[in-house]
Amino acid sequence: MRKIKAALIGAGFVGPHHIEAVRRLGFVDVVAIAGSSQKSADAKAERLNIPRAYGNYEVLLDDPEIEVIHNCTPNNLHFPVTMAAIARGKHVIADKPLALNPSKARQMLEAAQQKGIVHAVTFNYRYNVLIQQARVMMKRGDIGDVHFVHGQYLQDWLLNPTDHNWRLEKEGGEARAVADIGSHWCDLAGYITGARISEVLAEYTTIYPTRQRPRSSREAFATSQGQEQYDEYPVDTEDFASILLRFDSGMRGAFSVSQVSAGHKNGLEIEVNGRKA
Amino acid sequence: MRKIKAALIGAGFVGPHHIEAVRRLGFVDVVAIAGSSQKSADAKAERLNIPRAYGNYEVLLDDPEIEVIHNCTPNNLHFPVTMAAIARGKHVIADKPLALNPSKARQMLEAAQQKGIVHAVTFNYRYNVLIQQARVMMKRGDIGDVHFVHGQYLQDWLLNPTDHNWRLEKEGGEARAVADIGSHWCDLAGYITGARISEVLAEYTTIYPTRQRPRSSREAFATSQGQEQYDEYPVDTEDFASILLRFDSGMRGAFSVSQVSAGHKNGLEIEVNGRKA
Amino acid sequence: MRKIKAALIGAGFVGPHHIEAVRRLGFVDVVAIAGSSQKSADAKAERLNIPRAYGNYEVLLDDPEIEVIHNCTPNNLHFPVTMAAIARGKHVIADKPLALNPSKARQMLEAAQQKGIVHAVTFNYRYNVLIQQARVMMKRGDIGDVHFVHGQYLQDWLLNPTDHNWRLEKEGGEARAVADIGSHWCDLAGYITGARISEVLAEYTTIYPTRQRPRSSREAFATSQGQEQYDEYPVDTEDFASILLRFDSGMRGAFSVSQVSAGHKNGLEIEVNGRKA
Amino acid sequence: MRKIKAALIGAGFVGPHHIEAVRRLGFVDVVAIAGSSQKSADAKAERLNIPRAYGNYEVLLDDPEIEVIHNCTPNNLHFPVTMAAIARGKHVIADKPLALNPSKARQMLEAAQQKGIVHAVTFNYRYNVLIQQARVMMKRGDIGDVHFVHGQYLQDWLLNPTDHNWRLEKEGGEARAVADIGSHWCDLAGYITGARISEVLAEYTTIYPTRQRPRSSREAFATSQGQEQYDEYPVDTEDFASILLRFDSGMRGAFSVSQVSAGHKNGLEIEVNGRKA
Repeated sequence: MRKIKAALIGAGFVGPHHIEAVRRLGFVDVVAIAGSSQKSADAKAERLNIPRAYGNYEVLLDDPEIEVIHNCTPNNLHFPVTMAAIARGKHVIADKPLALNPSKARQMLEAAQQKGIVHAVTFNYRYNVLIQQARVMMKRGDIGDVHFVHGQYLQDWLLNPTDHNWRLEKEGGEARAVADIGSHWCDLAGYITGARISEVLAEYTTIYPTRQRPRSSREAFATSQGQEQYDEYPVDTEDFASILLRFDSGMRGAFSVSQVSAGHKNGLEIEVNGRKA
Repeated sequence: MRKIKAALIGAGFVGPHHIEAVRRLGFVDVVAIAGSSQKSADAKAERLNIPRAYGNYEVLLDDPEIEVIHNCTPNNLHFPVTMAAIARGKHVIADKPLALNPSKARQMLEAAQQKGIVHAVTFNYRYNVLIQQARVMMKRGDIGDVHFVHGQYLQDWLLNPTDHNWRLEKEGGEARAVADIGSHWCDLAGYITGARISEVLAEYTTIYPTRQRPRSSREAFATSQGQEQYDEYPVDTEDFASILLRFDSGMRGAFSVSQVSAGHKNGLEIEVNGRKA
Repeated sequence: MRKIKAALIGAGFVGPHHIEAVRRLGFVDVVAIAGSSQKSADAKAERLNIPRAYGNYEVLLDDPEIEVIHNCTPNNLHFPVTMAAIARGKHVIADKPLALNPSKARQMLEAAQQKGIVHAVTFNYRYNVLIQQARVMMKRGDIGDVHFVHGQYLQDWLLNPTDHNWRLEKEGGEARAVADIGSHWCDLAGYITGARISEVLAEYTTIYPTRQRPRSSREAFATSQGQEQYDEYPVDTEDFASILLRFDSGMRGAFSVSQVSAGHKNGLEIEVNGRKA
Repeated sequence: MRKIKAALIGAGFVGPHHIEAVRRLGFVDVVAIAGSSQKSADAKAERLNIPRAYGNYEVLLDDPEIEVIHNCTPNNLHFPVTMAAIARGKHVIADKPLALNPSKARQMLEAAQQKGIVHAVTFNYRYNVLIQQARVMMKRGDIGDVHFVHGQYLQDWLLNPTDHNWRLEKEGGEARAVADIGSHWCDLAGYITGARISEVLAEYTTIYPTRQRPRSSREAFATSQGQEQYDEYPVDTEDFASILLRFDSGMRGAFSVSQVSAGHKNGLEIEVNGRKA
């Protein structure tokens, strides 16, 4: 029984979930991990029972045993890491948002297709049983023609000015809540209904134009422990947004995304309204 | 124990709810009703145990015993009926939407103030216990500064092309879903948060530009009984809408309203997101 | 239009709800109220806009204008008040539990039947829309043969040792949670399914055998205001109970009732499980 | 990095979940599986990517590489398989119910302790986040002294007379719904509250004393495909039950379990009621 050799690049919040997911399959061995430093890679490798640890992704990509990489780096590294992996002939599982803008996304797709690379973006909610159920109901006509898709994706982990994550810094790129979780919502709207977004109108709001950065680093969703020291820094990405959509099918859409809505840990809702002839 | 003498103008869906509400108080006698014809007024008077029935509202307004009227007429009559009542010195409970446009609403307010008329608009959801609870929590600072208010008001009673009501005809005026139930949502957003809407951006959608009018008349929320005959007629008011809001406090808002969202009988949701300093 | 003349005996928590309910009908005048003293009757009469107030129920029953009385007295007065009303030829709306034991209930029924008295017990939940829906679904066979009915009726208003009400004293009789709210649950189980309870097994628990009585009196569901003085008193009625049931149809049942389950204000649940052939 | 060598005995419904769970850890290799025949073992081994397949558990237990076995056999085999594993010095993860009666459970425990065997029963719900949260809240005193624990565990996968599983046959032993899922509920009641059940009173009901066995075999929760042939067989284990409990702490309990309650796929509810001093 041959096992696929996989590796993880990016030892932050979401990487371990990728590792657990592929280990459940039984035909994948996770053989290596790369972090932003040798130290962080070593620590994660030990915690996750991964044999080899690399201090940067370039070295990992030179490891000839590795067949596929999981790109779980911060958003501004999605493009260079994926392009480097494609160049070495590694297959790629890329985390969302695929890129910071559409032209870079297209560039990656073309490169992957030219090299015959197997590739995927982890829009993991697609495989949630409720989403599968909704899609099946749509496909078999239970809902008829859909004229309206609406909902929300609300979180509160960046509500306080001292909540901190790389997404608030330059590594996050120029969009935040919409790129980070709005991308999931938009993907699901299309996945369930089969329609594609053709027009967009959005209201982005930044509640905290100035935030406090803790002097020690912190992972996504982690909270402060006791007394900490902070430095001020400016933020110009959106804390929340409301978006109106039109789809190529004529369907309308509306949703809100937020990382500052108290009481919502990870609250994703999507509803389609249709009618049967 | 003196009892206030009240009368109902408009014998449709909502009038009987007004009657029940004032009768519960114990100090109001409902003495008269006016319908669109003597026949409909007589029928409703008998069903609701109201002593006097009038075939039009002008005659009712001449009844000197009546002190206050409930204006439960179709939207395009809100203005003339209320103005006529004010002219006769009757106090007025007016159903929403108060008027078809802001200038007429201002005209009524001025007339009422000049005559010393007691007046109210039935934004009845204000007194729902959940709304009261939300407002109290806001006022005592449980939620801190609110930056976002969002929600929806969805119904499905006009989903089918053969669903019919005067709101779809000229009596409804130029707005429908937003005037009819969106007005409630906007009122509650202000009532709970204390802020006022200052800017609006909306997407209105008409799913059925042509509908089928049944040849016999029908009350709100009533459904078809058996075989009916229909005439085609054009509809240009919105079946649903999504609206982005800005408030004078800096708060943002977003909500959708619909009369064609299957599965929602009368689904009103409103949520405020804030933060404590 | 002739109006029925009704009166309320018992000026406590539930009486005003009876008043509101009959006033909504439009063909009932509430003409009198009796309290446990002239003072309490006068106060309630003024608050509820009722013309005449009596300091005891015997005097009220001698009022010849009164046609029907609402018996909203404490449980141990249900029997004598209803029997006295029947003796005067008044029709009776009796609050639940109808009596403290079955033999007294039978005695009242016989007396009412002999005198041709119209009579009812206020199992008001029967007319809740969800209960009506459940009953209709049962009747038209949506659920098939029911083999199991289960649920709960939980409250928390008597959780604390200083929570006080006449139900905890001798006026409450020998059963409390089960008589007070368990009676509703049992009634609904029969009302929905059409079966009658034939066998019962119950576990009654008294959490607080000693409680603190506030020196000032208090209505049902009212809470303490500030500093109060208390006297100890023994309680031997059940704070909560779990009950197994068998029905004449062969159906089984199980439910719990409680007045000491924190977080449940007035939580009634009932579910039927059946199968279609 | 040394990896633990594990094996699965019993290739039915729950075994694959054990496999996925241990594979997620990263330090366990699943090296073998035993089924009721070589054919079923081979099929499962291929589907689950397990290297070695055995046609019976005795042979698997002779495999010297295996350190720990997961006993996922039908209930009547729990005892012999676990005793045989202990005899070979294999560590044991045993599925619930641990045994068909308490004396056999004690026998296994003693054997395991004598041989220094690491052992566990898969009361997996203990590690559900809601259960962990409830337990933490209990431990830190959020709920005070608990006087009542109640709830239900309802399923519907055996509602129809043609629904079939080994639990309905002799392999299931003398209890069914209570052994199968009631055991989870009882475990959780103790796990959350720290109290132990000391007295029990139960009403067991068998809705279908005669059922239809499909001539082809079927896994748990699987449903019939098209036209099948059936043989009648008698069933005397409970389809549902209601149980009253007393705990060593003085706490009372009540719950119902069912495998025939339509609409409940796998509905487990547990609630504790307490009070703070």
